[in-house]
Amino acid sequence: MSKLLIRNLRPMAGEACDLLIEDGRIARIGKGLDASGTAVEDAGGAIAIPGLIEAHTHLDKTLWGMPWYAGRKGGVLQDLIDNERNERIPLGLDVHRQSMRHALRLIENGTSHIRSHVDIDTDHGLILLEGKLRTREALAGLVDIQIVAFPQSGLMVRPGTYELMDEALSAGADIVGGLDPSSIDRDPKASLDATFALAVKHGKPIDIHLHEPGELGAFTLEMIMERTRAEGLQGMVGVSHGFCLGMPDQARVASLIDQVAELDIRIFSNGSPKATCPSLQALRAAGVKVGIGCDGIRDTWGPWGQPDMLHRARIVGMKNSMRRDDELELLLDTASSGGAAAIGVDGHALEIGAMADLTLVAGETLAHAVVEEAPRPMVIKGGKVVARAGKLCVEGVVAP
Amino acid sequence: MSKLLIRNLRPMAGEACDLLIEDGRIARIGKGLDASGTAVEDAGGAIAIPGLIEAHTHLDKTLWGMPWYAGRKGGVLQDLIDNERNERIPLGLDVHRQSMRHALRLIENGTSHIRSHVDIDTDHGLILLEGKLRTREALAGLVDIQIVAFPQSGLMVRPGTYELMDEALSAGADIVGGLDPSSIDRDPKASLDATFALAVKHGKPIDIHLHEPGELGAFTLEMIMERTRAEGLQGMVGVSHGFCLGMPDQARVASLIDQVAELDIRIFSNGSPKATCPSLQALRAAGVKVGIGCDGIRDTWGPWGQPDMLHRARIVGMKNSMRRDDELELLLDTASSGGAAAIGVDGHALEIGAMADLTLVAGETLAHAVVEEAPRPMVIKGGKVVARAGKLCVEGVVAP
Repeated sequence: MSKLLIRNLRPMAGEACDLLIEDGRIARIGKGLDASGTAVEDAGGAIAIPGLIEAHTHLDKTLWGMPWYAGRKGGVLQDLIDNERNERIPLGLDVHRQSMRHALRLIENGTSHIRSHVDIDTDHGLILLEGKLRTREALAGLVDIQIVAFPQSGLMVRPGTYELMDEALSAGADIVGGLDPSSIDRDPKASLDATFALAVKHGKPIDIHLHEPGELGAFTLEMIMERTRAEGLQGMVGVSHGFCLGMPDQARVASLIDQVAELDIRIFSNGSPKATCPSLQALRAAGVKVGIGCDGIRDTWGPWGQPDMLHRARIVGMKNSMRRDDELELLLDTASSGGAAAIGVDGHALEIGAMADLTLVAGETLAHAVVEEAPRPMVIKGGKVVARAGKLCVEGVVAP
Repeated sequence: MSKLLIRNLRPMAGEACDLLIEDGRIARIGKGLDASGTAVEDAGGAIAIPGLIEAHTHLDKTLWGMPWYAGRKGGVLQDLIDNERNERIPLGLDVHRQSMRHALRLIENGTSHIRSHVDIDTDHGLILLEGKLRTREALAGLVDIQIVAFPQSGLMVRPGTYELMDEALSAGADIVGGLDPSSIDRDPKASLDATFALAVKHGKPIDIHLHEPGELGAFTLEMIMERTRAEGLQGMVGVSHGFCLGMPDQARVASLIDQVAELDIRIFSNGSPKATCPSLQALRAAGVKVGIGCDGIRDTWGPWGQPDMLHRARIVGMKNSMRRDDELELLLDTASSGGAAAIGVDGHALEIGAMADLTLVAGETLAHAVVEEAPRPMVIKGGKVVARAGKLCVEGVVAP
C-alpha cells in the first residue's frame, strides 16, 4: 500500500494539520498523524484545496511554444473557424505536441481534471482526436481528461460531419459537442435532433457551445431544454458560454435560469470580458452547477489567455464584479469542487475517502489565494506529487 | 557628460542596433556605435519601446503588501466610497508607504510616467496628498508622477471640499479631478462650474471620473464639452472611464466621439470587464488621445489588479476584442507613446533628442510583447538603468 503523509497544510484555509494518503485516496486528516512507514512532505502551512477544474478548453488549438503567429483575422465567427481549419496543417500544429504543452502547464498550475473539446471536421477526420487521445494516455495518472467531440465547422452545414462525430464517440470521445445550432448550423431543429440522437445512441453527455446572443440564444436554449426534458437527459446536458443568459432582460433571464436549474443543465463560462456572460452568482444561487474554463489559449483565434485556472478565475471574478471574500470563495469553489460537479466528477473534496487530488495555493485566506499571482507550491494528483513551485516533477514526463 | 551605450536592442521590434544616451537623452541610434568613454549595457536582442504610461491609477489606495483585507463591501458606489473613507485610518493605510510600494512595482514593470489621483476629502484634509508628494520626491528621476486632486467623496455634497481642492492645487497637485457630477454630486451644473473655475484659476488641466452610464453619462459629458469650448480649454480636459461611450446606441456614441475629438478631450480607460467601456479602436480612429490605466490595485474597493501596465493592456485588449497584430500594436502604443500624449507628455518616442525613457520587453514582435507574461528585461529612465529582470536596481531605494 503506497502512503504519503503531508504535514502542516491548511485544508480550505482552516487550521494547520496533517493529511495521510493511502493508495491515492485521503485516509486521515488530523494533527500529529503517525508518519511511520510513509513518505512525508511538508506543506509549509500552505492552504490546500481540491485540484482545480478546467471545465472548458481546446487542447487541440493552442500555439503555445510555437513561433509567434501573426495571421489572426478579424471578421465574424465563421471567418475565424475557416482560418483555423485552413491553417492547421500549414502551421504544423501537431495536436499531440501542443495538447501536451497545454495540459502540462495546466497541471503545473494545479489542475486535476480537464474537459477539452476537439475539432471534428471533414478536412481533418479524426486525426485531431487521435493526437489528443495520445495525450490523454501519456498523462494518465497526472490529470484526468474528458474529450468532447466538437463539430467546430458545423454539423449540418458540412455533410459527413455527423458520421465522423459518430465514429469519434466510438473511438474514445466522452461527450457529444455542438456549436450554435441556429447561427452556425442554420437549422436548429435538425442540428439538435442529431446531437441528441448521438447522445442517446452512445449513452454519453452533451456539451453545446452557445455563443448566440440575446433572444436568438434564448430560443436555441429553449430547444435544448425541450429535448433534454423529452429524452429524460436531466443532468446530462451542458451549455458552454451561454451568452444569452447575460442579456439585459432580467425577468427573461431569471425564467431561463429556473428552467436550466430544474433540468440540471450545466453551464460553462469563460467570463469573456467582451461578451454578455451569465451571472455566476445568479446561476449558483439558483443551484445550477457551473464550471469555468480558459477556453482557447493563444491559438489562431486570439492571442489571449494563460493555461492557469486561477488566472481565468480572476477574469471571471472581474467580469462578475466580485469584491467580497464570500464572492471570491464562491469563485474558487466554482474553479474547484463546484466545477468538478459540473463536469460530472463527484466527491471532489478534501474528505476522507476522496481521491487525493489536491493543490496547495499561496495566500492567507481562500479569497487571497484567488487573487494572488504566485506559483502553486505543490500539486498532488491521485496521491502523487506531480508539481512543485509551479514546475512539473514527474520522472519521464517532459513538456515538449 | 554622462553616457550610456545600449548594445543589441530592437527599437519597436525593428532590426537590432545600438542606442547611445547622453545626459539622459537619446543621442544616437545605429549599428556598431563607438563605446569609448561610455558605460555599456547589452540588451540581448530584446525589443525596446518607450516607457509604459500609467494614465489612471490611485497610488493612495492600495493595500499591496498589507495583511489580507476581508472587509470589502458590495452595494452601490457611495457605499464603497464611504467604506474607504472610514477604513483608511483604522487599517493603518499609510499613503507614503503604500504609494511607494505601488509606484516601485510599476517602475519594475517598465513604467516611466504615472498619473495618479489622490483623495481630497473633509475627513483627511490634505494628508493623503502630502504622503503622495513625499513619494513623488522620493522617486524623482525614477518615474514622473502627475497628481490629480480628486474629490472622491464628492465636491458639492461635502461642503469644505472645494476649499481643500483649491489648497491642494496650490500645494503641488497638478490636475483638477472630478467625480460623476450628476450621479454623485447631484448638481452637475454647480459641480462642473466649480471644477472648471479651479482649472481656470490655477491654469491646470482637468481629469473627471465619469462612471455615469448611458444617457446620464452622455448628458454630463455634453456639459463637460460645453464648458471646455466656452473656456477655450481644448486639449486641457480628460475624462476617465467614460462608460457612457460604451452604450449600445452606436450613432449617439459616434456623434459624442466626434465632439470629444474636436475638443481634444483625452479619454482614460481601464477596460473594465464588467462595464460598458468606450471602444479603443473607435476612439483612436477618430483621433482621440487615449491612455489606459490600472485604476485601483487591491484596495478597499476590490481585490483585483496588478501594478503592471502590460497586465492592464491585456485586459483592455480582451475587452476590445483585439486579436490581430495591428490591433495589439495599437494597444501597446496606447500604453506607451499614445498614452503619453494623452497625459500631456510629448515626444515620448525612441527618437534622437527624446528623453531616454525606455523599456525592454520580452517577445518576438510588438504584438507578442503585449501578451507574453514575463518580467521586463531592463527599464531605463532618464538614461539610467532602474530595473533589471523585473527587479529594482537603484542604490538607496528599497520598496517598503
